[in-house]
Amino acid sequence: MKNVYIIGVGLIGGSLAMDLKSSNTQIQVFGIDSNASHLEEALSLGIIDATAEHSDLDKADLVILAIPVDKALVELPKVLDAISDETLVIDVGSTKLPICNVVSNHDKRRNFLATHPIAGTEFSGPKAAIHNLFQNKTNIICEVEKTAFKLQEEALQLFSDLGMRIRYMNPEAHDKHIAYVSHLSHISSFMLGKTVIEKEKNERDIFDMAGSGFESTVRLAKSSPAMWTPIFKQNKANVIETLDEYIQNLKHFKQLMESDDFDEIYNDMENTNHIKEILKGIA
Amino acid sequence: MKNVYIIGVGLIGGSLAMDLKSSNTQIQVFGIDSNASHLEEALSLGIIDATAEHSDLDKADLVILAIPVDKALVELPKVLDAISDETLVIDVGSTKLPICNVVSNHDKRRNFLATHPIAGTEFSGPKAAIHNLFQNKTNIICEVEKTAFKLQEEALQLFSDLGMRIRYMNPEAHDKHIAYVSHLSHISSFMLGKTVIEKEKNERDIFDMAGSGFESTVRLAKSSPAMWTPIFKQNKANVIETLDEYIQNLKHFKQLMESDDFDEIYNDMENTNHIKEILKGIA
Repeated sequence: MKNVYIIGVGLIGGSLAMDLKSSNTQIQVFGIDSNASHLEEALSLGIIDATAEHSDLDKADLVILAIPVDKALVELPKVLDAISDETLVIDVGSTKLPICNVVSNHDKRRNFLATHPIAGTEFSGPKAAIHNLFQNKTNIICEVEKTAFKLQEEALQLFSDLGMRIRYMNPEAHDKHIAYVSHLSHISSFMLGKTVIEKEKNERDIFDMAGSGFESTVRLAKSSPAMWTPIFKQNKANVIETLDEYIQNLKHFKQLMESDDFDEIYNDMENTNHIKEILKGIA
Repeated sequence: MKNVYIIGVGLIGGSLAMDLKSSNTQIQVFGIDSNASHLEEALSLGIIDATAEHSDLDKADLVILAIPVDKALVELPKVLDAISDETLVIDVGSTKLPICNVVSNHDKRRNFLATHPIAGTEFSGPKAAIHNLFQNKTNIICEVEKTAFKLQEEALQLFSDLGMRIRYMNPEAHDKHIAYVSHLSHISSFMLGKTVIEKEKNERDIFDMAGSGFESTVRLAKSSPAMWTPIFKQNKANVIETLDEYIQNLKHFKQLMESDDFDEIYNDMENTNHIKEILKGIA
């Protein structure tokens, strides 16, 4: 693997580029991005070695597609059209069914591997890229059987070099589960931020009274709308289901408060404390 | 200030004890706790120098009340009954109106200062105590004018030694604002944890797919029900109001999704991104 093309040199694409370059000095990383200033930034930060065009993709050993999930649906078929028979193409999006479906009948389906590295921060763009972002993180791979065996092997070696553990899942299951543990968290955080901002017109008061607890709960509300809007759109049915259940639980909590049933509120919280054990081991 | 009595040697009481001892080697810290094993733990961890009884409180220069807010309402009048005329008594609870009200007519009201240090973690008990927890954190002081001037001065020196900045506020305003930036965050986090646990019976799946985003948003769901149930109870009206607004915002978001109004979802998130600027400076 020598020529790596990163389409989308943001947080994920940029971090992958950095780790790939430091794991193997033979690798040349080329950046492609519709945002010219991001591309320049990535170049001056040393994240990529050079910029490139779509017409260069026939020289790629590996293409990583790290752009918002709506754009990825348009881009992936074009990328597959442009590559050689030996090229591995990986996407890293947070929804997996739409992208698997869009190329299900593509001639080069076997060159593509659908993945979702569970890693990131609330920041975006090349400046947000960090070393070792993927160390000890999970990478979920969907429809592995549809990727050529040799390219599966290359991809697994790559993820292993990045320090990732692998889980295999079908895209339907991925999209359903991820709605709970990722997409819903983002909505709950965004709406918490919105509720507080609406109420506290005097921002100085928020700042002064907010502690690390609020900061932690509202952290994801800093995330990029350009990235998250298409995720919610593509995973609409699952997200609405989780949101429904979340709203029901909040309403129930409110009803318990209104009826002064604080014993039940105590029990509810105590049962949920169990999340401690579940989360043990997450960095 | 030589004899300090900490009632409740948990996360907050224990952390205060540690910082007081290291800021002034003259200080002797005595612990009082209804939980005998916590008391023993605090002693063996060196957080307190000795255990004590309520009958010893007449020897106290400073008493810090760091117990759940329901217990504090019962305990504070008894503490004021037991102390000398020169003793400063501080509470650190997350609700301020009930505690201010309960001693408003007490003979020793001027010995008491109502405070809320905005500091903590999701853990509890003496083992959770940490050094420098209060450094650069805000301490909200209520009804400062009702405390004897000399004791105000002592308290301010103490908070300054701990590295805290001070904000003065009336207890009504405190309880209203803190419902938004602290109490609501806890409920949103607890209900997120509940929703995910209910859905994902196979805990292995949660663990494998949950990333740092979920971990951050659900962190407060590890908090102690014994501490939080009485806070919600005492701040019922304000908390219900915040919860109402939060539920409305979530419902609105769901309606936008159902009607495929993803432009408005984008706008909603973009406006909320503003939380970045607001939170700058929170550790």
